[in-house]
Amino acid sequence: MEEREKAIGIFDSGVGGLTVLKEIQKALPNESCIYLGDTARVPYGTKSAQIVTTYALGNARFLTSKGIKLVVIACNTASAFSLGRLVEALSIPVVGVVEPGAERGVKITKTKRIGVIGTEGTIASRAYTKAIMRLNPEMDVVAKACPLFVPLVEEGLIDHHITRQIVHYYLDEFERDGVDTVILGCTHYPMLKPVLGEILGGGITLVDSAKETASVVARLLDELSLHRPTGDGSCKYYLTDIPGRFVRIGQQILGKAIGNVEMVHLEL
Amino acid sequence: MEEREKAIGIFDSGVGGLTVLKEIQKALPNESCIYLGDTARVPYGTKSAQIVTTYALGNARFLTSKGIKLVVIACNTASAFSLGRLVEALSIPVVGVVEPGAERGVKITKTKRIGVIGTEGTIASRAYTKAIMRLNPEMDVVAKACPLFVPLVEEGLIDHHITRQIVHYYLDEFERDGVDTVILGCTHYPMLKPVLGEILGGGITLVDSAKETASVVARLLDELSLHRPTGDGSCKYYLTDIPGRFVRIGQQILGKAIGNVEMVHLEL
Repeated sequence: MEEREKAIGIFDSGVGGLTVLKEIQKALPNESCIYLGDTARVPYGTKSAQIVTTYALGNARFLTSKGIKLVVIACNTASAFSLGRLVEALSIPVVGVVEPGAERGVKITKTKRIGVIGTEGTIASRAYTKAIMRLNPEMDVVAKACPLFVPLVEEGLIDHHITRQIVHYYLDEFERDGVDTVILGCTHYPMLKPVLGEILGGGITLVDSAKETASVVARLLDELSLHRPTGDGSCKYYLTDIPGRFVRIGQQILGKAIGNVEMVHLEL
Repeated sequence: MEEREKAIGIFDSGVGGLTVLKEIQKALPNESCIYLGDTARVPYGTKSAQIVTTYALGNARFLTSKGIKLVVIACNTASAFSLGRLVEALSIPVVGVVEPGAERGVKITKTKRIGVIGTEGTIASRAYTKAIMRLNPEMDVVAKACPLFVPLVEEGLIDHHITRQIVHYYLDEFERDGVDTVILGCTHYPMLKPVLGEILGGGITLVDSAKETASVVARLLDELSLHRPTGDGSCKYYLTDIPGRFVRIGQQILGKAIGNVEMVHLEL
């Protein structure tokens, strides 16, 4: 198969990465995708760098075995912990979700104070802080782990008074800190954009890492002349646990039914 | 080593099972324990019966390789999905947390309407409902998944207005249903006993599966003459991911520092 005809490989610990798939499909409607959700070991956000990197390498190797032209780490924790290791290990381009979000945040902030929200793992890794500092060391970064956001999204409590209170609980400090830009450093969080926008108010701009990552993928395919000229934008899904829960929550995220799902057992 | 000198093996997906360990140490202060927390794959509550049983078998085999006299499945999801399979596979007694809680609930209810709360997996398995019906088919069971409780406990939001609202969100229906007994069908939930007791009110009795399981273990050691006559009640911990988070949340649960921790890689 010609290189440009190949699919884009995308992996995440579970359903969250579907926000990235959705943006990629929107930006690049000809491309076909292969999505791997490591639902047997989800979540990554509370686990160590060592174990997440082991899982990420296994996921990437599985995807490359299917013949892909580019791999997207559609998970902030895995991007934070494992991007470097995957770039070393693979012979195709690897795109994480941290750098694209960081780049956009640095570009649009006026106060030079950027908020970052994510899982415990992503925040503890300081990956966004480091990426932002590499781009502009004059920035101030206020990073905040919000471990309840993922279970809230997965419970479907997208627009609920409990969610509003939890947003206040975590994020009221951003206003005091003079933050004008908040990077959504977890692929589940775009689902909370309406409520986050409402509570954080008009003075704060949200950066959606999923959207920024899709832009970077598009730019990279341009640079490498790897765009697929025609195609139907189909997606094949692989999961490491049975699909019930993934399909149920996933169709809320994608806004359409999920078919073409296969279960796989990954050897580590 | 003489059989009765051997340790009690206990496993859970993570820290939750420490509520069971705590009750076992209280009831049986001479016994030494070996605790395995499968923190690399935590949680089990949102995963399938198939994958949880694979993990549970791996955990139990690891513990038996250390020379134990009895294994406790200190996880409701794994007990619900995998008790039968473990009883078949192992040559030592296996105690789950579902039957002891169900037994106690049936014993104390007056209205014959028992509430059960747990993870998605435990509730979907209908394990408590089946166990209760086997004991007394005249019972009514109202089962309710409360997926936000575990992340709340792990966030340390034990006594917080957000937690109170989430308790109302899940459990206000119990009052309408005439339930007089609620089984805490998840090993994290004993941490929420004060707030659950306050909100559910004096008309509802909480059944703590951890405590009931410790009683069953004590009874079984009696019946099998396997009590250790003297001992210091020490515990050795094995974890499948690095220990930082386990030790931090675990000491809140145990009310004491956690030492003697070793990391293991489990082959499936």
